[in-house]
Parts: sequence; C-alpha cells; structure tokens
Amino acid sequence: MSSAPSPAPRVTRDRMDASLIDVPPGLAGVVAAETALGDVRGLEGFYHYRQYSAVELATRKPFEDVWQLMINARLPSAAERDAFAALVRPARKLPESVAAELPMIAKLSAETDLLGGLRAALALAAASYGFRPLYDQQPEERHRAAIIVGAITPVLLTALYRLRHDQQPIAPRDDLDHAANYYWMLTGAEPDEQQWHAINAYLISTIDHGFNASTFTARVIASTGADLGACVLGALGSLSGPLHGGAPSRALDTLDAIGTPDRIDPWVREAVTSGQRIMGFGHPVYRTEDPRSAMLKQIAQEFGGPLVDFAIATEEGILRILDELKPGRALRTNVEFYAGVVMELCDIPREMFTPTFATARMIGWTAHILEQAADSKIIRPSSRYVGPPPPQPFD
Amino acid sequence: MSSAPSPAPRVTRDRMDASLIDVPPGLAGVVAAETALGDVRGLEGFYHYRQYSAVELATRKPFEDVWQLMINARLPSAAERDAFAALVRPARKLPESVAAELPMIAKLSAETDLLGGLRAALALAAASYGFRPLYDQQPEERHRAAIIVGAITPVLLTALYRLRHDQQPIAPRDDLDHAANYYWMLTGAEPDEQQWHAINAYLISTIDHGFNASTFTARVIASTGADLGACVLGALGSLSGPLHGGAPSRALDTLDAIGTPDRIDPWVREAVTSGQRIMGFGHPVYRTEDPRSAMLKQIAQEFGGPLVDFAIATEEGILRILDELKPGRALRTNVEFYAGVVMELCDIPREMFTPTFATARMIGWTAHILEQAADSKIIRPSSRYVGPPPPQPFD
Repeated sequence: MSSAPSPAPRVTRDRMDASLIDVPPGLAGVVAAETALGDVRGLEGFYHYRQYSAVELATRKPFEDVWQLMINARLPSAAERDAFAALVRPARKLPESVAAELPMIAKLSAETDLLGGLRAALALAAASYGFRPLYDQQPEERHRAAIIVGAITPVLLTALYRLRHDQQPIAPRDDLDHAANYYWMLTGAEPDEQQWHAINAYLISTIDHGFNASTFTARVIASTGADLGACVLGALGSLSGPLHGGAPSRALDTLDAIGTPDRIDPWVREAVTSGQRIMGFGHPVYRTEDPRSAMLKQIAQEFGGPLVDFAIATEEGILRILDELKPGRALRTNVEFYAGVVMELCDIPREMFTPTFATARMIGWTAHILEQAADSKIIRPSSRYVGPPPPQPFD
Repeated sequence: MSSAPSPAPRVTRDRMDASLIDVPPGLAGVVAAETALGDVRGLEGFYHYRQYSAVELATRKPFEDVWQLMINARLPSAAERDAFAALVRPARKLPESVAAELPMIAKLSAETDLLGGLRAALALAAASYGFRPLYDQQPEERHRAAIIVGAITPVLLTALYRLRHDQQPIAPRDDLDHAANYYWMLTGAEPDEQQWHAINAYLISTIDHGFNASTFTARVIASTGADLGACVLGALGSLSGPLHGGAPSRALDTLDAIGTPDRIDPWVREAVTSGQRIMGFGHPVYRTEDPRSAMLKQIAQEFGGPLVDFAIATEEGILRILDELKPGRALRTNVEFYAGVVMELCDIPREMFTPTFATARMIGWTAHILEQAADSKIIRPSSRYVGPPPPQPFD
C-alpha cells in the first residue's frame, strides 16, 4: 500500500453543503424509519413486537404465531394458524437443484463460519427462485417470498452444519412445528418438552430487537426496490460483523476459561484490570436489566444442574466485580450470557449458536422488508467530503 | 394475508424518545459519513475522485491508475503502476473450485438477471477465500481482499454471461489492461483504440458517485466489522434495486421504442402526457448537466453514425418537449442515456450494461469499505415506533 498523500487543507464547502444535516456519528439516535413492528424501551428494560410484550409472546406462544404477528400484523386465529402452516410446510422444501449443491457449498466454505456458507446457499436459492424486485411485486408475492426465505433458512443451516461434520442432512417433518423441526433437522431427535419450550422461547425472543444494524441494512436495500433475497443477504452480512453482537458462544467460552467457581473472582479481576471486554455484559440501549437475559435465566434455572449453578455464580461475580472496578458504568447482563447457557442445555452445538440466532432474526428482517417495501422512498443519506479541495491538476 | 388490525391511537412516546432526532425522510441530506474519496457538486455539474476531476481522470488515465487512486489515496508513479499490475494479475485467477461451479450457477440463475448470478458466484468465492472480518484484519490484508474482489468481478460476470449463451468462458490475459481484458473476456476479441478509450472512460466514470444507496449499504455493513465479501454482496443487492438507477439499457430501449426520427415528437408527447417516466432523464443531485452525460455524448460523437445521430435527435426532442410540458422541472440528460449508446457502439450486449456498471462501481465500494474499516463506529440509526401502545394483553 502507498503512503498517505501530503497534508492538504480541508476543502472549502461548496454550495450544496448548506443543505447537509449534521447528526451524531454512526447516525446514533437518528430516526431512519417509522415502524409498527416494535420497539425497545431501554430505560424500562422492555421490548415489544407490535403492541405485545416480546417476552410474554416468547413464553406463551409457538414461534409460528409470532412469525404471523410480524408479517401479517396480528396474532392468528385457529383457522389462520392452520392456513399459515399449510403455506410453511411446502415452503420448507428446498428446490432439488439447490439441495444438490449443499455438499459443494459446505466443502467450499469449510474455512469460513457457517454464516458464510449460508450466504452462498441463500444467494443460490434466491437466484433459483427468481425473486423479482420488491417494487415489481404485488404484496402477496412479496409475502410468499418472505415465507419461503424464513422457512428455508433453518433447513439450509442445519444441512450445512451436518454436512460439515460428515452427517447426512435431515429433511424437515410436516408433523413438527418450527422449534421442534429445528431441533430435529439439527440432531435427528425430537426435543423433550423442556427443550422445546426453551428453543421456542429463545427463537421468539430474538426475532426482532429495535433498529439494529442488520435490520437497518435490510431496510436500506429494500428501499431501493431490490428483491427480497438481496435484502436478507445484506442483513446477514451485517449480522456477521463483530460489532453487531449476538455471539452467545463467546459468553460460554468465558465460562470455560474460568473453569471452576473458585477461579471466578481472580479471573474476572484480571480480565477487567487488563482492559479485556467481558462478553455477555453491557448493552448500547438497555440501562437496566435486559429482559431477554431475565427470561433466559429463568428458563435456565428451570433446567437446573451444575452448568446453571456455575453460570449464576459467574454472573454474580462478574456484576459484583464490574460494579467495584467500574463504578457508575452499571454494566448489566445482556442476552448473550444466558442464551449461550440455554442453547448448551438444549444440546445445540456452539458453532450453531449464532446461526440459530440468524434463523430467528431472519423473520424480523423479512417483516421489516415487507414494511419498507410498502414505502417508496429510497434511504440515501449524504456524506461530507473532507479531502483536499478539487480540482487539482495531474500529469 | 390477513387484514390490518383495527385502528388504534398512536403510541405515547416513552422517555427514550426524547433523544430521537428527526430528519427528512430517507435520511436525505443527512451526513452519514466523512469521506476523502470524492463528492458530487450537483449545482456545478462537477464530481471528483479524491482531489481530481472524475471526467478528467476518465479521459486521460487507464482504469488501473484510478483504481489505485481510490484504494491507495494517490495516483501511482510508474514503479507503483507496475507493482499494482503484479498484484492484480494473479488476483484475476479464480480458485479452481469456484470456476468449476460457474456452469451450475449460470444454469441455476437462468431465470434471474446476471447480477443474481454474480451474487451467488461472489458469495461462493468469498466463502472460498475465507475473508476474515474487517476488524480482525490488518490494513494490508483488507487491501488484498479489496483487490481480489475488484479483480474477479469482471471475470465472474463475463464467464456467467458466456455460459448463459452456451459459450465457453474466456480467461483473462496478463498482457491486457483492465478495460481491454474486460472486452476480451466478454467477446474474445481485443477492442480497437476507439473502443478501448470508450470502455476505459465509461468504467472510470462510474467507479464512484457520491453517497448512493449501494455505497451507503457497503459502509453500513463494513461498520459492523463484517468481512469484505459481506459488504460488497450487500452493495450489489442495493445496486440491483430499480430505484438505485444505473440501468443504461432502459434508455436504449426508449430509442428502440421510438424507432425513427419522425416518431420522436409524437412518442415523447404521448409518454409524458400519459405520466410515463422517460428513462435517462432527471437526476436527484444534478441541477445542471450531468458531467458523465456530457463526456459520454462526446465519446459517442467521436464514433458517429446513424445510432448517434438518432440518439442526439432524440435527446434534443425529449429535452424540448419536457421543457414545454413540464416547465420549471429542468430535467436534464443523466448518465444512463449516452452510457447505453456508448456501450452499444462498443458491442457490449444490453444484458451486460448494468453488470458492466457493477464491475466499475465495485472498485468504488471497496474503497469506501477500506475507508469505513479505518473507523470503528457502527452505523446504527433508530426508528420511531408508530403502532398501538404496548403492552396489550392477548389470549
């Protein structure tokens, strides 16, 4: 790479600049869209999907009901629930031509993480389905595309995971619901009731969460009128970024690194004083307890056992020491910490923690894409030029 | 799809809302980033790459020089030019495992446009290269990934185009430069000097153009720290949206629809009065002549011939009638109109017009990604909840 050009004065603002609007870096706090899909109330430790508490939905409804709430704008009646299941069952079937390529994709993406493989599989599937631009589609056609993408994502991911580990993919079953099918395709077994409850609740609780970077990405692409596949591929890209968050395996890695209860105190002190970030703590929006963490902690406690006891002791130790060493920061447990514990209790392999999160968030993205597609305003902000003043001559 | 829920009052704003910042819809005019890569001065009809006039660069430099200007922050010396060529030549070579899948991708994506096929091919290539997250990479590693992606995009696109038309892909040649290689891989012939000049200038002139939606998408994904493949896939998604613009084939379709010079006047009057949008006219930023249009018109005039004469007569007719029927709107010719004419004169098939644009814009995206990666602030705006007040009870 070449060295930087010699220092030059900042450019004189041209006339267009009078219309530029300065906002906080990273567009923090800037309203980029209006949404009826939900919100996060950071000061209250509360978040909601449409007009319902997300935690209440997660603990009392099957995943499919909340999927419908998001893309159909209301909780289904019994008849609507059946009609939706009749749409989802065939949508889960991969086109033969795509299914045939999954072993190749698993092999080619062996050096990257599973989301990299999912990206290739979804790009191929989107091309194969021939999704049309959102702005050329009637609402019914967009809605169908949204269901297809939501339905095939868990099928693709579990197949890629198994192929990576020299196991045959397992086809979805028509007699199982979303959460049970997920476990079935991953492990070849049906979840017991407690596992089903935990997986169902975790998946629902991560469908949406305010205007995170991946959701915003989905809406920016949707605002150009591009096809639904383009939108979810972009969102998946943002989700894979380390700053996006949502890597519950890291919190479990912390538990492993600590090892035993007597090492909690010295390990955490050492980590905090050496400036290491403790994974699973702190959140950009919540100033109080993360409601997802509270829900998942309770689910973990219902499982019980040594891992849960150790996790609770570790959480207490970390909060106590953070409070002592970083007073006033009020760092609280975020969704990652107990999400990792709960998925471990459900025998979901760590490599699948973030992909599992992605299968749920996919539903949120598609709902945001459908909402954005009903608008017709492109999301296109501006930039401020800060280089040397043009035009400079050159040889 | 279900019907909408019954009307409900707008939600009472919670305490967090006090910090929300309202801006114009679509973030219009909002500064989302600072950049030294360039700017568009809409009132002056001028745009620049770093501190140089983009049109001057396009007419006086080879593509590779401007590629280096964008990602290395300066125009190369002779030695730097050779060093860069030595980096690009091997980067053009597709991994065998990816090349082997192109016939399958061409077949699977037959129902979608070439950008849909490119998306699948790039996702596979990114997985195969195993690009790491931007935030885990040293600048040199990011820079190498940017060169790879810029180098393989024309290779992938021309191969997919040829496979679609039952022709064998043509490998790039080490003795040809970027513009000549593009023509070679597409047609199997070398461009004559006039064609080379036209293709080189067109490609340079579309590398970047302010903060369009695809460039913004690339930067949003990059701001999460995701890998470079994730960023360009998202950008490619936005580029494919009908509202993004950049579909020069539509302008040529207009010429076809008009057919003969005597039909210009009635055709345009009918189109304008029936509310049809005339492709190739009007731009969200330029309030004067689009400098790209002026440059491409001159290039077309150097070719001359009946298509050029007809295009010029059509442009004059459209501008005259728009001015008469929509006075005060001051709609001017945009880049699409003469871009289509110039590519037709260079024997580039219409199906490849937008993909050709994408190969050039890819360089701009990678430059913006590298610039964004040097920052560490995630781009994450907010949304305003506008549904019924939560929490509502449910059964």
